[in-house]
Amino acid sequence: MKKIEAIIRKTKFEDVKEALLEADIEWFSYYDVRGVGKTHEERIYRGVVYDTSYIERIMIILVVRDVNVERTVQAIINKAQTGEIGDGRIFITPVEDSIRIRTGERGDISLYDVK
Amino acid sequence: MKKIEAIIRKTKFEDVKEALLEADIEWFSYYDVRGVGKTHEERIYRGVVYDTSYIERIMIILVVRDVNVERTVQAIINKAQTGEIGDGRIFITPVEDSIRIRTGERGDISLYDVK
Amino acid sequence: MKKIEAIIRKTKFEDVKEALLEADIEWFSYYDVRGVGKTHEERIYRGVVYDTSYIERIMIILVVRDVNVERTVQAIINKAQTGEIGDGRIFITPVEDSIRIRTGERGDISLYDVK
Ligand SMILES: Nc1ncnc2c1ncn2[C@@H]1O[C@H](COP(=O)(O)OP(=O)(O)OP(=O)(O)O)[C@@H](O)[C@H]1O
Ligand SMILES: Nc1ncnc2c1ncn2[C@@H]1O[C@H](COP(=O)(O)OP(=O)(O)OP(=O)(O)O)[C@@H](O)[C@H]1O
Ligand SMILES: Nc1ncnc2c1ncn2[C@@H]1O[C@H](COP(=O)(O)OP(=O)(O)OP(=O)(O)O)[C@@H](O)[C@H]1O
Ligand SMILES: [Mg+2]
Ligand SMILES: [Mg+2]
Ligand SMILES: [Mg+2]
Repeated sequence: MKKIEAIIRKTKFEDVKEALLEADIEWFSYYDVRGVGKTHEERIYRGVVYDTSYIERIMIILVVRDVNVERTVQAIINKAQTGEIGDGRIFITPVEDSIRIRTGERGDISLYDVK
Repeated sequence: MKKIEAIIRKTKFEDVKEALLEADIEWFSYYDVRGVGKTHEERIYRGVVYDTSYIERIMIILVVRDVNVERTVQAIINKAQTGEIGDGRIFITPVEDSIRIRTGERGDISLYDVK
Repeated sequence: MKKIEAIIRKTKFEDVKEALLEADIEWFSYYDVRGVGKTHEERIYRGVVYDTSYIERIMIILVVRDVNVERTVQAIINKAQTGEIGDGRIFITPVEDSIRIRTGERGDISLYDVK
């Protein structure tokens, strides 16, 4: 099991959502986050100027079975990518266990919706 | 140390909170999240119909010492479980270090409230 | 790569933000969280009284290359520490991969802003 965290443009959320559902991906969760950084653009054109204001993004979190990691990452990249600075990031982190609260099932089976 | 992330019904939050405090669990953090998925129900009764609207849940995050993992998971399941579809999930992930900002303490001791 | 999660006082956010930018740290994300716990203070002065109301904090999340972990932790502690109860916590967790959505770059290079 892996956790995939994707920080994407708000304008791309609906496309990414559809792509994840079409890719037959299990549930995902999301919430609003803000980002702060030294903007690349400002550095190139104006030297060492910090952009200290924030930008708004959506954080998508989903835990998937190992077999679904690459499919999920590709679905997100396909829809979230514009090619312009600021498309966001995806992080992949380890998950040791997952529990479905309704049944108490643990491990991969807890992530799997039996069809 | 482990991080426990529990996505639960909003209606169960107060019960889970009380259970965690009674179980003598250290601090926890929480915030609102939204969930999107193919609902199990819809698939069974109406075929491949996606429910593309979101549902509201609360994400509880707490980092606990290894000795407290199962106690925490059981406290959450006990109170968050209704037996109906949609009770939520718990994820367990590894934590390499924890720091108490006030003292700079690191490791298990930083999670422990000396009584 | 490591993920650093810092739960800090809202009043310290601007100082921590400046310190991270000055420390030449890559992007970070943040959002509001609430915390619940048995307050240490209440226990000492009034016995076993639970403070069941929440406190507001900001969660900062940043994924950094291994070489930047300690620098980041120190920048946060330096600015977020008041010495009073309630300064918050920092958690360090493993990250297996990072992807820059714009380019598809993976690994450390995806975290690095070429100057
Ligand atoms: N290392 C990081 N840790 C936490 N959040 C990050 C990190 N990098 C980026 N983010 C989040 O992702 C958002 C978008 O980042 P952005 O797309 O500009 O990344 P980038 O690496 O600079 O890519 P690009 O070169 O295409 O601009 C930021 O606003 C921030 O919220
Ligand atoms: N794999 C996942 N990754 C991220 N979030 C998830 C995942 N699975 C569930 N969630 C979150 O948990 C919420 C509740 O999920 P839900 O309880 O329906 O899970 P379930 O496995 O379908 O269980 P049930 O069969 O009891 O319905 C979702 O709205 C979503 O926010
Ligand atoms: N183990 C934990 N898991 C998740 N969140 C935590 C944890 N510990 C603390 N927090 C979050 O950090 C916030 C501040 O915690 P706090 O600074 O009181 O920690 P503390 O260890 O009690 O330190 P102090 O002894 O200085 O008060 C809490 O409101 C909560 O949101
Ligand atoms: Mg950028
Ligand atoms: Mg369900
Ligand atoms: Mg405290």
